[in-house]
Amino acid sequence: MFPEADAVAPAVTAVFTTVLTEGPLSRVALARRLGLSSAAVTKAARPLIETGYLEELAATERTGPGAGRPASPLAIRADREFFVGVKITGDELIGVVCDLRAEVRTSAHRRLSAPDVDYVLTELGEFVDELLDRPGSLDIPGGYRARTRRLGLAVSGDVDRSTGLVRYSPFLRWHDLTLRERAEKLTGLTVTVENDVKALTTAEHWFGEGIGAESFALVTVGAGIGCGLVVGGRLVSGSHGVAGEIGHIGIDVNGPACHCGSRGCVEAIADADAIVRQARAATGRPELTFEDAVALARDGDAPVGAVFARAGDAIGSGIAAVANLVGPARIVVSGEGLAAYDLFEPHIRAGFQRQAFGTAADCPLSIRPLPFEEWARGAATVSIQALVAS
Amino acid sequence: MFPEADAVAPAVTAVFTTVLTEGPLSRVALARRLGLSSAAVTKAARPLIETGYLEELAATERTGPGAGRPASPLAIRADREFFVGVKITGDELIGVVCDLRAEVRTSAHRRLSAPDVDYVLTELGEFVDELLDRPGSLDIPGGYRARTRRLGLAVSGDVDRSTGLVRYSPFLRWHDLTLRERAEKLTGLTVTVENDVKALTTAEHWFGEGIGAESFALVTVGAGIGCGLVVGGRLVSGSHGVAGEIGHIGIDVNGPACHCGSRGCVEAIADADAIVRQARAATGRPELTFEDAVALARDGDAPVGAVFARAGDAIGSGIAAVANLVGPARIVVSGEGLAAYDLFEPHIRAGFQRQAFGTAADCPLSIRPLPFEEWARGAATVSIQALVAS
Repeated sequence: MFPEADAVAPAVTAVFTTVLTEGPLSRVALARRLGLSSAAVTKAARPLIETGYLEELAATERTGPGAGRPASPLAIRADREFFVGVKITGDELIGVVCDLRAEVRTSAHRRLSAPDVDYVLTELGEFVDELLDRPGSLDIPGGYRARTRRLGLAVSGDVDRSTGLVRYSPFLRWHDLTLRERAEKLTGLTVTVENDVKALTTAEHWFGEGIGAESFALVTVGAGIGCGLVVGGRLVSGSHGVAGEIGHIGIDVNGPACHCGSRGCVEAIADADAIVRQARAATGRPELTFEDAVALARDGDAPVGAVFARAGDAIGSGIAAVANLVGPARIVVSGEGLAAYDLFEPHIRAGFQRQAFGTAADCPLSIRPLPFEEWARGAATVSIQALVAS
Repeated sequence: MFPEADAVAPAVTAVFTTVLTEGPLSRVALARRLGLSSAAVTKAARPLIETGYLEELAATERTGPGAGRPASPLAIRADREFFVGVKITGDELIGVVCDLRAEVRTSAHRRLSAPDVDYVLTELGEFVDELLDRPGSLDIPGGYRARTRRLGLAVSGDVDRSTGLVRYSPFLRWHDLTLRERAEKLTGLTVTVENDVKALTTAEHWFGEGIGAESFALVTVGAGIGCGLVVGGRLVSGSHGVAGEIGHIGIDVNGPACHCGSRGCVEAIADADAIVRQARAATGRPELTFEDAVALARDGDAPVGAVFARAGDAIGSGIAAVANLVGPARIVVSGEGLAAYDLFEPHIRAGFQRQAFGTAADCPLSIRPLPFEEWARGAATVSIQALVAS
């Protein structure tokens, strides 16, 4: 088990977090990085080694004048514990089992026929069982189940991570659902619940492009347009429960009506529904799907191409607002909408460059499609974070 | 003198900052708030009392069961040291002398005929002398000069606080000016240089509406539209040198051209120049001033009133972007442009309410005019902060 809570000094958490996200590191390097004495690092590392979360790698010989005894870097024992992560959407469950370093060991999908709470939770219980019953690699006796104590869930909408309450999830049509409590009863695991975009941002911050960044933003493009923000090394959650709502930045006062009640929001121009609506209007074909629109634009259909161009430009303009206001070190743009990456990318960059002010335009944008398991990996990452903070 | 740097443990800084911004406080209350032992607080407070920065107030009798010896709250000795703050604009110097609690003790203006660097610096030297030579109150022997070691300067534009370099100030037309170095030679004082909006935000954060707020935003309306952001208790400075540029959020892709090269920025619709330009177009009177426009709108001129309405709405929409992305605990809207407060206010609120997403609309907005010395007080506050961090 992880060292008992009352024995976990802040130094233990700091050593564990740093080795987890930036290791392997020698005790000397850890001491320097954390502003601790070598003795304090050694003391903090001991319970983590004893409980099997950290291990000492083979000593690397140091040479040259002033070389002390060989350093044995500390590393994470990634398969000491596993974490299930599940993203719940209106029509499917996406699940993974991750190790301590948030490497995906196995993944699965399950279709859902409706977002009804009782039905979804029953399916969720079976789905988690299915993941845990997978054998894992040969050198892990007992498979994943024997070493899994935590489940992370990610849902879109307004989620209170501290209580595990889903206040409102528009796509699922869930209101005030005590999801953590119900999922813990169902699975016997310790459950964390987080907003899906925040979960994905956590994964990028700890185990992706955001590693070591003081500030960082992740923008997701798809059914909605979302954004997770890290400032001063911490995820911004918003004093009134809202943060990262890039989708509702108004970029065109005379633009199309948005479901939020305003006009010309980024989401009203650039989310999947908005693109389908505009592509149908442009072609006069009321049955057109998102996939049809992508195919037409790739085939050179100018009016449908213009719909993607306008959408990309709107997203770029919204991203520029993030850069102008917060100035993150870097911004990652991803999401299932970026399956149509080729159609969006140049227009996202153009809108960003036009609207970014001065050196805000120097902020690097990584624009890339998102593998479907990434959302579930984000959910698992939040449960890894909960372990570290426990 | 302030305790020597190498004697200043983090606990000393923490105790001083907390008593400064939230005191008077008893040692017990300080220990609780800072997570320190009472002994550590007593030890940290000692050098601050010895050097005259803190004092013990008369003991207040504690009664009831379990009451220990009477508590003597610690308080700042506000007149232990004074700070000069000057805002430098293209046509005037605005200066104050503040005490340690950032209370303005005296203030002054000096007109400038041109933004020429050598001329402005000569004027600045005389202006600081004039402020320091003022007698102060009767109980301060030697007046302000005897107890002043620090000068804070605030200028608009791109300023590097850490080096005191003014990279670019558009209104002053200054490029790469080593302002701190030159002002220190000129005055013999220890100088800090900060962007004016950031300085004002610092003043509100430490000594105004932002006290104790984990996150907080200040929006300034006038010659430009600016914004200072505090997130996680720290001023956001932007990884690429830009942050808080609310003026260049694009809210109307088909709007008027902006000096930044884009279209429909908040500033292109709502800063003083933009209002004058639109009011001239609306009335066909090319000689119209900002003051004329305010007078006409107040007299019920509908087209000019609509210019202020559109501007206020644009500002509100930009503020909503701040609330949607960062979710500050509260937002203060101020600036010299709010001399026309009555014309702007309802439209700022309407634009904000329309564009704020969900509970982001719960963020309280304080909309109020800005006394002219506030900018200079902000500059002085940055030098108080520099003392505390020294």
